[in-house]
Amino acid sequence: MAFSLHPRLAAGGFEIGRIAGCRLLLKNNALFPWFLLVPEVDDGIEDLHQLAPDRYAEVVAAIRQVSAFVSEHFRPEKLNVACIGNQVRQMHIHIVGRSTGDPAWPGTVWAFDGKQSYTDESVSRIKTAAGKWLDC
Amino acid sequence: MAFSLHPRLAAGGFEIGRIAGCRLLLKNNALFPWFLLVPEVDDGIEDLHQLAPDRYAEVVAAIRQVSAFVSEHFRPEKLNVACIGNQVRQMHIHIVGRSTGDPAWPGTVWAFDGKQSYTDESVSRIKTAAGKWLDC
Repeated sequence: MAFSLHPRLAAGGFEIGRIAGCRLLLKNNALFPWFLLVPEVDDGIEDLHQLAPDRYAEVVAAIRQVSAFVSEHFRPEKLNVACIGNQVRQMHIHIVGRSTGDPAWPGTVWAFDGKQSYTDESVSRIKTAAGKWLDC
Repeated sequence: MAFSLHPRLAAGGFEIGRIAGCRLLLKNNALFPWFLLVPEVDDGIEDLHQLAPDRYAEVVAAIRQVSAFVSEHFRPEKLNVACIGNQVRQMHIHIVGRSTGDPAWPGTVWAFDGKQSYTDESVSRIKTAAGKWLDC
């Protein structure tokens, strides 16, 4: 299957690794630990429940692993996990660590415009940590 | 385990049924087919990945079933599925049908204030349909 990442997803973040047939991206916004899990699916499969049962199980297991990583590594107060995709239809799951002090709290990150780019060094550190935790 | 629904969740919707140890609520906003799945978990378990593996599997299977129901019954263009809970910490998963013409499109429902109450008749119709589909 020829899978290619949607240009808007590719442009908005850094490829961190690959886990269970999903690309793991770090969104380029240092205000939140914000990851995207992008299952390599055929075009037209946009909602999680459309995945075949075995593939659904793999993807939700990957969501669980990435959630545990974000939770343990960044120690946020709450996770926000969502599959939305109203604008970019290529299936992608947001896994975002949220805390009382963050600039969008208690609203959602999707309604928040603030942005702060990562330094190369920060991306590299996060990539190393994710690689160790997730073996990706 | 004595589980009781958070008062804000209870006040904002209608109890539709029970599936895999989760309460299924219809949010009282007729602008969107908007359901909440509320797993009966112990206090302090707020994020999906904190569930034990077997319970996680049950809950994500219930999410899949409710997603299929919303998709087939309401025929939206896209589903938005999310576990957020920044304000109401009792674990609840939003399963919302979204379409190009809806009043929040393409934004998320969580950043949208518009509301329209259901008639009793509509709630009853939806409850019957959900009961048949989900056997709940």
